[in-house]
Amino acid sequence: MSVAKPLRIGIAGLGTVGGGVLKLLASHGELLTQRTGRTLQVTAVSARDASRDRGVDLSSVRWYQDAAALAVDPEIDVFVELIGGSDGIAKRAVEAAIAAGKHVVTANKALLAHHGSALATAAESAGLTLAFEAAVAGGIPAIKGLREGLAGNNIREVHGILNGTCNYILTEMRTTGRDFADVLADAQRLGYAEADPSFDIDGVDAAHKLAVLTAVAFGTKVDFKSVHVEGIRHISALDINYAQELGYRIRLLGIARRTEAGIEQRVHPCMVPTNSPIGATDGVFNAVVADGDFVDKVVLVGRGAGAGPTASAVVADLVDIARGRSTPTFGVPAEQLAPLVSSPISRRQGRYYVRLMVVDRPGVIADIAATLRDQHVSMEAFLQRGRSPGEAVPVVWTTHETDEAAMQSALAAIGALDAVLEPPRMIRIEDF
Amino acid sequence: MSVAKPLRIGIAGLGTVGGGVLKLLASHGELLTQRTGRTLQVTAVSARDASRDRGVDLSSVRWYQDAAALAVDPEIDVFVELIGGSDGIAKRAVEAAIAAGKHVVTANKALLAHHGSALATAAESAGLTLAFEAAVAGGIPAIKGLREGLAGNNIREVHGILNGTCNYILTEMRTTGRDFADVLADAQRLGYAEADPSFDIDGVDAAHKLAVLTAVAFGTKVDFKSVHVEGIRHISALDINYAQELGYRIRLLGIARRTEAGIEQRVHPCMVPTNSPIGATDGVFNAVVADGDFVDKVVLVGRGAGAGPTASAVVADLVDIARGRSTPTFGVPAEQLAPLVSSPISRRQGRYYVRLMVVDRPGVIADIAATLRDQHVSMEAFLQRGRSPGEAVPVVWTTHETDEAAMQSALAAIGALDAVLEPPRMIRIEDF
Repeated sequence: MSVAKPLRIGIAGLGTVGGGVLKLLASHGELLTQRTGRTLQVTAVSARDASRDRGVDLSSVRWYQDAAALAVDPEIDVFVELIGGSDGIAKRAVEAAIAAGKHVVTANKALLAHHGSALATAAESAGLTLAFEAAVAGGIPAIKGLREGLAGNNIREVHGILNGTCNYILTEMRTTGRDFADVLADAQRLGYAEADPSFDIDGVDAAHKLAVLTAVAFGTKVDFKSVHVEGIRHISALDINYAQELGYRIRLLGIARRTEAGIEQRVHPCMVPTNSPIGATDGVFNAVVADGDFVDKVVLVGRGAGAGPTASAVVADLVDIARGRSTPTFGVPAEQLAPLVSSPISRRQGRYYVRLMVVDRPGVIADIAATLRDQHVSMEAFLQRGRSPGEAVPVVWTTHETDEAAMQSALAAIGALDAVLEPPRMIRIEDF
Repeated sequence: MSVAKPLRIGIAGLGTVGGGVLKLLASHGELLTQRTGRTLQVTAVSARDASRDRGVDLSSVRWYQDAAALAVDPEIDVFVELIGGSDGIAKRAVEAAIAAGKHVVTANKALLAHHGSALATAAESAGLTLAFEAAVAGGIPAIKGLREGLAGNNIREVHGILNGTCNYILTEMRTTGRDFADVLADAQRLGYAEADPSFDIDGVDAAHKLAVLTAVAFGTKVDFKSVHVEGIRHISALDINYAQELGYRIRLLGIARRTEAGIEQRVHPCMVPTNSPIGATDGVFNAVVADGDFVDKVVLVGRGAGAGPTASAVVADLVDIARGRSTPTFGVPAEQLAPLVSSPISRRQGRYYVRLMVVDRPGVIADIAATLRDQHVSMEAFLQRGRSPGEAVPVVWTTHETDEAAMQSALAAIGALDAVLEPPRMIRIEDF
């Protein structure tokens, strides 16, 4: 075997993911040495609770209370940040590690979404690697696949299911017919959703990941602020049923698309064809689709969270570092990342699903149709089941391709009609 | 920009794929320089026909008749082999390139299936890269994904749709109801199948790719000879209909599985659940599923052939070489590749679909059931539609999990029954 020096690893944060990384490194030491020619050796860790049993012998490992102190330990070569959070200790520790000449591996999408370009510049100017396979789509090698595997392409679009909690909730709602709040409560009991679920269900987590993917796909600076974000709180069992009837599934997607007006970055519920790869990805799974000008579409599906899959991604980065395989953080050197010219959501071109609750009385449909006509929005399909004169009934339609600004104007006008009882529900259709 | 030396590329074979690589390098020069810090420059080519227009200006490029002469050109750093064939000029040229100190990029699965271990050893002892992303699953970054992206895992299994021609034929048969020969003739007219289609439809091409994937997945020497290979010639419209009725799709799969008895490598038609990722992959697409002990299953889907996707894969390898990113050819150093301990097809454990044509008369089913019982094969579902006393009718059943040896004995005994008019048709079921 090899006589190369061990790769000395410091791990900050020994929760689910940190524990998984420890377990992987402990159980697969020989395999990893065969694959890298070196020993991957955990020499120091930091965690709030040193006493908890992580199932791995840590008696010969240095312990720190403070991740930033661990980050500058002279006996580590790589700092693995598994604390989380866009600012605070995670950021301080990563900055300290880079300043001290350590490579960094992180699973922290919030940190990268907010400070990715600056951290990449700092790491690259010091000749260091900042690696983050685990930050996007868990165990799926999406970053490597996009940044290296599709390096010969101009990427036209990348989109995907980036949050397993939302996909689980939407899948459960469809298969059980239950309502959002009910399924969310269950997901919390099962540990699939946090006690404070807003990062997941309001789309923020997916938006963090999308901002990172966008930078890798298009060679642009990470620009989280220009991501349009909507979550899934307003998705009702009714809409899920209509989607099914129309041949669609509802997914929370992150979409980054190059258009003539700039780059669209948006996270929102979408209707996608049931038999598309994204439509077929149920439950806690993630899926990433990259569309390159030479390769066409490549679909990657797998587990987006959990100790094992996330540890797999962290260790893939460690293996790259151990082998001396380096790549610019976002595919092109950080100093060459272009500012992102953002195309706002109002310029989105596409199809739409709309549901209204209206009073069932003569003339209502004519009013709606006239409003759509005035905004040059063309109706594709229209559904109104049964009759209940004088009562509230759902009315659903889909549109031909139109632009979002026109659609929003039409919805505002329609929402103001007397017979319309609730704000219109709109879900964008993406025919991938 | 960078002042690093250009990467000088010699391309042998300017057919569909070679033309695609030339076009990609010509159109994306700036992007590739940004991603690698170097110019990717084609300095020499070889092809049988120098006069054909490839849509790219080759006037300043050296031309060779002989690929082996190109391979040793002192002005190239990388030899790109796009000729094909397991022996002959492709092999001679790749060996010459390695002997002359050139990195090699190849799309040649036949060459790797037959000589992969020896070529890897030669390249690695000279400190050279032998790269072959384009050899398996076309544009899908399956080799990189498995070898680097999942490097932290013990791989339990890898399987996939590795031949787009077969998948196209099987998909067409299902959607049109036509027979194999008819669809094959169409595929040949459309250019989806070769004039001599046997490499594709008899499973040899998929077996070449599987042998390569196996080596990457398990760190074993490439062992094409131990791959069990069956093609799709005997798949009938009748079986495709029954599959559909039972909730399955028929796919030609390559499967490499680690078992206690050794590694299974097999290429044959399978029934897979309609709503599985493999079941959902219709038409010319390829799909690769890797199952790692930490990451669980990762699914990669995309175009497995064609100028653009294959060029994308070739250029991804060139980008790695340009950036000095090196990885052992099959994930572990070639000298450490273990001999493959093969588990023969007779030890396969799984479920089976069987179809017979029998004379419709009393007692036939009882005879079949008794034979299965004698071999300890347990029936799961049984289908016999309608009655035509005294005439030939299809009888179909699926089994519970059993082993192949028992199944084969049962089929031999059943095939010998008087009332059974044709050799039994058996298709293995894989519940991925």
